[in-house]
Amino acid sequence: MSLVIVGSLAFDTIQTPSERREKIVGGSGTYCSLAASFFTRPRIVGVVGEDFPKDVLALFKRKKIDVRGLEVRRGKTFHWEGHYGHDPNQRETIRTELNVFGDFRPKLPAPYRASDIVFLANIDPGLHNDILSQLKKPALVAMDTIKLWITTKPGVLWRALEKVDILFVNDEEVRLLTGETNLVKAAKKIQSAGPRLLVAKKGEHGAIVFGRDFVFGVLGRLCENVVDPTGAGDSFAGGFLGYLDKMGKLTRPNLRRAAVYGSVLASFAIEDFGVGRLKTLQPAEIEERFLEFRRLVAF
Amino acid sequence: MSLVIVGSLAFDTIQTPSERREKIVGGSGTYCSLAASFFTRPRIVGVVGEDFPKDVLALFKRKKIDVRGLEVRRGKTFHWEGHYGHDPNQRETIRTELNVFGDFRPKLPAPYRASDIVFLANIDPGLHNDILSQLKKPALVAMDTIKLWITTKPGVLWRALEKVDILFVNDEEVRLLTGETNLVKAAKKIQSAGPRLLVAKKGEHGAIVFGRDFVFGVLGRLCENVVDPTGAGDSFAGGFLGYLDKMGKLTRPNLRRAAVYGSVLASFAIEDFGVGRLKTLQPAEIEERFLEFRRLVAF
Repeated sequence: MSLVIVGSLAFDTIQTPSERREKIVGGSGTYCSLAASFFTRPRIVGVVGEDFPKDVLALFKRKKIDVRGLEVRRGKTFHWEGHYGHDPNQRETIRTELNVFGDFRPKLPAPYRASDIVFLANIDPGLHNDILSQLKKPALVAMDTIKLWITTKPGVLWRALEKVDILFVNDEEVRLLTGETNLVKAAKKIQSAGPRLLVAKKGEHGAIVFGRDFVFGVLGRLCENVVDPTGAGDSFAGGFLGYLDKMGKLTRPNLRRAAVYGSVLASFAIEDFGVGRLKTLQPAEIEERFLEFRRLVAF
Repeated sequence: MSLVIVGSLAFDTIQTPSERREKIVGGSGTYCSLAASFFTRPRIVGVVGEDFPKDVLALFKRKKIDVRGLEVRRGKTFHWEGHYGHDPNQRETIRTELNVFGDFRPKLPAPYRASDIVFLANIDPGLHNDILSQLKKPALVAMDTIKLWITTKPGVLWRALEKVDILFVNDEEVRLLTGETNLVKAAKKIQSAGPRLLVAKKGEHGAIVFGRDFVFGVLGRLCENVVDPTGAGDSFAGGFLGYLDKMGKLTRPNLRRAAVYGSVLASFAIEDFGVGRLKTLQPAEIEERFLEFRRLVAF
């Protein structure tokens, strides 16, 4: 199969209670495609400025990520600054400089148009139709979204959901989107709008996959030192969709394992700033941690 | 083996967003012993007033709970009132009328003194030494505690921990007790004080058992209608310790299954007000839900 990821490539300025990092490479498309690259050869669609590091583009190529859909434009790369509290789930956006991402109109290169899986990685839901119309007949449309779109464009977002098969959101976003405190009720509301699968990410508590007639839960790995939580959700989606793309079939066992691989990739992503850990990660480490996730919950 | 439970028997006035119930029977000892009665014949130590319903005492006897340690005193039974928000994890104590529980000095009947497992179910940590001195040589000392004791008697509580093998607390209490946001670090701090096992209960997210050199996580069952969360933690401890008492050995597989049975009992307890659901619960339902917990996380 084939997976195309439409998302952001960015500079992130990150402040945690113990450290600050200025303008390190991040972005939903970056995390997601690196995570997916352990399973498949993802195609990436996005835009960067001339200031985007050449060695990251070289890294993408080494990882067999297809960058033909990556535009390099005159100007500066998208810059986001976020601060984390002692509880890594508490994140505050300090500033967002859209730069070249501001008037991004994703264009899929011709060879991408027959992709089987498309991931709309946290981009303006107003762009979804435009992207989907460029695809022939994707077997699976997945999307992620954040508080920003839920609060500023709820109508557009709900309409966008009609064409989505898998929605990835964190539990706070699920509640905000649906107005339901109870996750089971919230999942039903979302599923009645379109998505047959809701993947509710719960940070350290794990993730729940709600299907039409099944539910699967993966428990978060216990991590003593969360260095930088940025990109955990995007790495989750990358691992999840990359594995599904590799397997080719949306069976229940595959969906369960996809959620575990997603959790595995997210658990690595938070061990270092930016994509530091995803850069050095080896396939054998992924398999080892997959088994660790199984041992954690086996009884 | 044999399990003795020292805890409260109470009237609870419960207000949830949709309903209010006045003075229904509750208390840590009540929930815990009913939950444990599905696995063993727990011995209960506590005090009630003359207003405590006779039919509940009859229920205890039908469930083969040993009530020789239960004092009936002149006066009123302990009364607690709590309100829950839309998020069932948000609980506010409105009032606490200790009544006969106010000067409760637990006395263990002679036949209880050789008990193998003792559970100090959320009582004043100042009473722990007194209780433990009445026991010959318990194989396992378990305790639960709450915010009240953590904030009002931290010194006494930390000293009490020195004699404890298993501590049951919720994740908020773990953090409050240790001053650590990270659960792994918090667990190490608690274990260095005495308990070889920490059972961190996380409500809807499940529970984590921290051993000296192993960790086990059980994912919470997804429940669409939480009717009354009161007693979930006590039912968890009752199922956990009741199962261990039945099995007789503290092996790792037994500890894992004990945590699942604890979760199963807690998941039933919240389905109705007070001990309503524990009253009607059948062993076959427990086994069925045990398998449901396994299906939820299997991959």
